[in-house]
Amino acid sequence: MSDLELPNNALQDFSAWAQAKQARIELILDHHLPSADLAPHNLHSAMRYSVLCGGKRVRALLCYAASELCETDFKIADAAASAVELIHAYSLVHDDMPCMDDDDLRRGKPSCHKQYDDATALLVGDALQSLAFELLSQTSLCAEASQQISMLSILAKASGSAGMAGGQAIDLAAVGKPLTQTELETMHQLKTGALIQAAAMLGAISGSQEQIIAMQTYAMNIGLAFQVVDDILDVEADSSTLGKTAGKDANSNKPTYVSILGLDQAKNHAKQLYENAIMALSPFGNKAQRLRELADFITRRSF
Amino acid sequence: MSDLELPNNALQDFSAWAQAKQARIELILDHHLPSADLAPHNLHSAMRYSVLCGGKRVRALLCYAASELCETDFKIADAAASAVELIHAYSLVHDDMPCMDDDDLRRGKPSCHKQYDDATALLVGDALQSLAFELLSQTSLCAEASQQISMLSILAKASGSAGMAGGQAIDLAAVGKPLTQTELETMHQLKTGALIQAAAMLGAISGSQEQIIAMQTYAMNIGLAFQVVDDILDVEADSSTLGKTAGKDANSNKPTYVSILGLDQAKNHAKQLYENAIMALSPFGNKAQRLRELADFITRRSF
Repeated sequence: MSDLELPNNALQDFSAWAQAKQARIELILDHHLPSADLAPHNLHSAMRYSVLCGGKRVRALLCYAASELCETDFKIADAAASAVELIHAYSLVHDDMPCMDDDDLRRGKPSCHKQYDDATALLVGDALQSLAFELLSQTSLCAEASQQISMLSILAKASGSAGMAGGQAIDLAAVGKPLTQTELETMHQLKTGALIQAAAMLGAISGSQEQIIAMQTYAMNIGLAFQVVDDILDVEADSSTLGKTAGKDANSNKPTYVSILGLDQAKNHAKQLYENAIMALSPFGNKAQRLRELADFITRRSF
Repeated sequence: MSDLELPNNALQDFSAWAQAKQARIELILDHHLPSADLAPHNLHSAMRYSVLCGGKRVRALLCYAASELCETDFKIADAAASAVELIHAYSLVHDDMPCMDDDDLRRGKPSCHKQYDDATALLVGDALQSLAFELLSQTSLCAEASQQISMLSILAKASGSAGMAGGQAIDLAAVGKPLTQTELETMHQLKTGALIQAAAMLGAISGSQEQIIAMQTYAMNIGLAFQVVDDILDVEADSSTLGKTAGKDANSNKPTYVSILGLDQAKNHAKQLYENAIMALSPFGNKAQRLRELADFITRRSF
């Protein structure tokens, strides 16, 4: 086997790893979501519809990759990855509603309020948030209960008004307003960054303080890069590739990295953030290879 | 002092106790809610508007009364009472939204989506739910971390699709359909009963297993009685007394205890539930006096 083949093999390894983890999180979410045979049937059916739709599961992958670096127990990583994906799914359901982004498509399928109705979508989001905290509060998840409380605290802070919900509120207030790059960055750090950071930190929960902080820096940069890439894709891709309505953000006059920086500069910015993320991993050498591949997976789509 | 004066004094004592606890929970909620000076200002202002509106704080009172019976630490009772009131407040904000009950008034003031807008109301509810779990996951709340995890689990289950959100979904599906009394009871046990039970169980968290189960039975009955009373008031009171739009449930063709049982039978049923609740307290003698008074406070408004 020549040296030249190595990168390809490494890539194949990552693909296999990601696919295995994606299949794993799908099974675990399926297991934890209440059966649609159980009353209230419509709510449970809509919860399952909104969560079990595949997707890249970037947050779960981050959580698993961080857990491998920090040797966090599988059971803990599974619960953390599920909880984060449930919070993410709830935010998409609420975000798609007519009073928010009013988006009819989500991953190529009707969004929850289109498939069911607005009231059901509201309750689906509410119940998915509760379920995330229920999963993390299951008895004896962690050998040390205080570790489990830290995890619950990290998730609650990342979800609330100083995290994801706060970012959504800033996003709402920003429609039609000129934002600076710093303001846009703050908005995204809350709106998507906080939960992405939480995913990595929860995966790293059994690691040293140094590891947890490095994971946070890595995730903050990769989270922002993910958002810049999203803005680039919103301009460059079409709806069928994207699995949601393309050009939506630009059409609704929302500030984006592309509208502020232009397409080329936005691509450069994504690259810089990617490099910052990689830098944060340098203390860990080869052990962080999966996280490097994941950074690549998240950002190389567009630069 | 004659024997005849005792009941009045006891009543006065309860009033003073309830007022002190209502003032206490208001201060604690005010302390925990993010300042409106903090970004995102509009979201934080709307969160405060939706929570700090006085009200009877029945759930907090239940939590405090149970905590006194079971000698649960003040700090734990404060956190539990706040968390339950935050979940309750979020459910009211979402419940009032146009896609749900579409109610313009809440405690005599414009409901959150009328005072702000639908998108803000959606985020207010979402962020209040996160804040409830954040409060219960604060470091070292309980001497034993496993007790704190039990509390988080109780709150998460009571809020989710097998609790409050599930009850809302059953309620939605029931509009315009004839329900039996049992079906109506199941709906209310989830919609309002689950959180009321959680309030009492969280207050009782330091008690014996016997005490916690008795609190659950007491709270289940008083929770249902509360709902029957609500249905009676919806028919008998006017909007200004009620602080919300009167006759709303009847007008929107929702099944109520009054529509199923008639007014007199509904009153009898409230009384029966009240007596069941009192019976559950019998093992505790005088120590449960506050909980008896609270049962009286909750239900005597209408029978």
